[in-house]
Amino acid sequence: MPLAPVLARIDADLDLSINRLLELLRIPSISTDPTYKDDCQKAADWLVKDLNSLGAIASKRETPGHPMVIGQIIPPGYEKKPHILFYGHYDVQPVDPLELWNRDPFDPVVEVTEKGKVIRGRGSSDDKGQLMTFVEACRAWKSVHGELPCRITFFFEGEEESGSPSLIPFMKENKDEITADIALICDTSLFDSRVPSITTMLRGLLGEEITIKGPDKDLHSGMYGGASINPVRVLARILASLHDENGRITVPDFYNGVPKLPANIKKQWEALNFDHHAFLKGVDLNTLAGERGYTALEMLWSQPTCEINGIQGGYTGDGFKTVLPSIATAKISFRLVGQQDPFEIRENLRGMIENMLPPDCSASFKHHGASGGIAMSTDAAEFEAARKALSDEWPDEAAFIGCGGSIPIAGLFQGIIGLDPILIGFGKDDDQLHSPNEKYDVESFHKGTRSWARVLNNLSQN
Amino acid sequence: MPLAPVLARIDADLDLSINRLLELLRIPSISTDPTYKDDCQKAADWLVKDLNSLGAIASKRETPGHPMVIGQIIPPGYEKKPHILFYGHYDVQPVDPLELWNRDPFDPVVEVTEKGKVIRGRGSSDDKGQLMTFVEACRAWKSVHGELPCRITFFFEGEEESGSPSLIPFMKENKDEITADIALICDTSLFDSRVPSITTMLRGLLGEEITIKGPDKDLHSGMYGGASINPVRVLARILASLHDENGRITVPDFYNGVPKLPANIKKQWEALNFDHHAFLKGVDLNTLAGERGYTALEMLWSQPTCEINGIQGGYTGDGFKTVLPSIATAKISFRLVGQQDPFEIRENLRGMIENMLPPDCSASFKHHGASGGIAMSTDAAEFEAARKALSDEWPDEAAFIGCGGSIPIAGLFQGIIGLDPILIGFGKDDDQLHSPNEKYDVESFHKGTRSWARVLNNLSQN
Repeated sequence: MPLAPVLARIDADLDLSINRLLELLRIPSISTDPTYKDDCQKAADWLVKDLNSLGAIASKRETPGHPMVIGQIIPPGYEKKPHILFYGHYDVQPVDPLELWNRDPFDPVVEVTEKGKVIRGRGSSDDKGQLMTFVEACRAWKSVHGELPCRITFFFEGEEESGSPSLIPFMKENKDEITADIALICDTSLFDSRVPSITTMLRGLLGEEITIKGPDKDLHSGMYGGASINPVRVLARILASLHDENGRITVPDFYNGVPKLPANIKKQWEALNFDHHAFLKGVDLNTLAGERGYTALEMLWSQPTCEINGIQGGYTGDGFKTVLPSIATAKISFRLVGQQDPFEIRENLRGMIENMLPPDCSASFKHHGASGGIAMSTDAAEFEAARKALSDEWPDEAAFIGCGGSIPIAGLFQGIIGLDPILIGFGKDDDQLHSPNEKYDVESFHKGTRSWARVLNNLSQN
Repeated sequence: MPLAPVLARIDADLDLSINRLLELLRIPSISTDPTYKDDCQKAADWLVKDLNSLGAIASKRETPGHPMVIGQIIPPGYEKKPHILFYGHYDVQPVDPLELWNRDPFDPVVEVTEKGKVIRGRGSSDDKGQLMTFVEACRAWKSVHGELPCRITFFFEGEEESGSPSLIPFMKENKDEITADIALICDTSLFDSRVPSITTMLRGLLGEEITIKGPDKDLHSGMYGGASINPVRVLARILASLHDENGRITVPDFYNGVPKLPANIKKQWEALNFDHHAFLKGVDLNTLAGERGYTALEMLWSQPTCEINGIQGGYTGDGFKTVLPSIATAKISFRLVGQQDPFEIRENLRGMIENMLPPDCSASFKHHGASGGIAMSTDAAEFEAARKALSDEWPDEAAFIGCGGSIPIAGLFQGIIGLDPILIGFGKDDDQLHSPNEKYDVESFHKGTRSWARVLNNLSQN
């Protein structure tokens, strides 16, 4: 089945495709706010109907929270064609502060801007617009050839923006149905407007809250200052010791399991010519502050970090209070890579802190989640096939990139259904995800749809 | 004029004296709360009337805030007798949380407790009860001998618990009237129930708020973590560097002007056999945490300190947020002694911090007050005379002691009227100053009154 007419159909039907997306965007499916519970149902119903319209057997699956949508297109005789699982989410972020929006977030529109046409509205990029690129690609295949080039299972979630409480039980209970040969996820961004990407490395996350306790109550710093231990001072000493003078993290055995970046990936990243000055300039910074000896992309994607996310102790209101605090607390997090073991690191961190405590101080710890880093086996043929498809669509060659953050669904695909998901997305840095005036470039939507048509084509030829 | 009958009169009239104090305690003169403005006037009126009753020429002096009370007893022919200025304050602290009081804070009573009789009520110790010990001593002298042994100026303030906004202008405008040969202040405590004391060293206070700024907004620690500077980490490093491994403060030239403790004072302090284990045990601590090589009393009274009073940065609510904060703030204070110059220290601190800033970080500072340490010239004869008087009244010899905190009026006496005030008081550690169920031991009141009778006697013989 030739690809060219499928791409032509996508071009011809672009306005119709956008209109379908606008319909979906009009449903305010904010998952975290119970006010919008019925709207989440409506969005799921809309998707079921839309999948049915392109020949899928689709249904809404209730969960204790918002429903999942599962759809399948598995024509008879397709047993030997690859079975592809596609994941996206139909729920969206809340819209506050509403006054910062230039229009009703749920009255989406195509706007002409200086940088080109954009689809403006909550969820346009995250993730309804991205999800629909894949659906529209499938529709074009069906429309031109009457069939898809492969077997497809659609898997849409409605709780991604509210912590995915139903996701793991649902995936475990419906493991057979969602098991496939290849998994695709569309919830990431382009590297830049010329360079498409497949995200193949994601950092894990370990969150710890440390509370140092000294005296049994806040003391008067005149009466006790100089003789009594100050837990903020102890905490400052601990936090200051977490990095050495080169920015290297000092938790014992922390770097166990940190892999050397493969030469081919390192080369690809260098070829991206990432402008870290521009990246930092965007937040009023100039200087790379990570461990010496690494490039910016390595610091962000392939090296682990230790960050203090919050600290509090003593009097923090207006003015001054000469208090000697009883406790001090910090929230710290580690981004982890490769085979770093979050639980081992947690124990080593706790031990290191206990060892630094002076007399009269105790430390208590609260755990805030642990997940290891994720790296896909990019040697698998489907990764290269997908990369080739993207490179054919966009001006520059596609890159395997890393992601400083974590995308939990990626780990679940590995853990529950045993697949390294291929993370492809067409978002841009200025899409205003989770913020007022979210948008999705019409180019992202159009070329994204064309990209998926190409990816389905390439993956079906393996 | 013999002392013995004066002491006998104090003993005989104790109940009458207590009743007068209870009358004053019934007036809720909370200076910080405008609701009680009229009550502050009433308390001042009560004192004017009471001073008149013992032959003083007394009057209420309006200020922009609550009134002062000035009273004088300067009989004809007394030009050569010493002129003594006495300071106390009639305003009291607020009473919240009211539910923690065992009785109405302004319905005072003499209670019999396991430890002896106490006068319970707001202001009983701080400072109405203390103030009245001096008034009652004068009354006994007048009553027995028809005259006092010296010239007296009473100076009562009504804004001590609300920052004394009118004090400096009033003292400057009425300098001639309040100028005297000797100044007495009654707003401090006994060293312990056997050992009376004269507080001759007070630490000064320098308060600084430091804000470290990194990126121009809070960042996502996944997107930026590892490449961007984290101001909490920078602040932790700065705070951790303020003390060396021996607890010595590292601000450049910080110890300039810290005097060596005079041998006689050191000896007196050693003789106090201060039980620092019991002191620390009271707040669930065991180990002295100050600079090595000093005793507990030196750490508390004669050595400077640097304490972190508060710290805040990033996300400090429940749970976890993977934010890389834009700013971090700490409030720190220094207790100063001897000739340490608070403004020089402030500049050196700021310079030290500026020097520690990595690229992309800026520091801003907010000043929260500066006062130097105070030390009285205890060589002056009146100090020894007063100490002797106290030693005669109490079981053990009186000591010249230090005070970890600051008493601003003491500095004003030095600065405005050129006198080293003699700080004598009879409060106890368990008086619950500023707290619910404030009390003053009847013994403090009784022996306090007798002490002042003796002090007046001794000071008049110089």
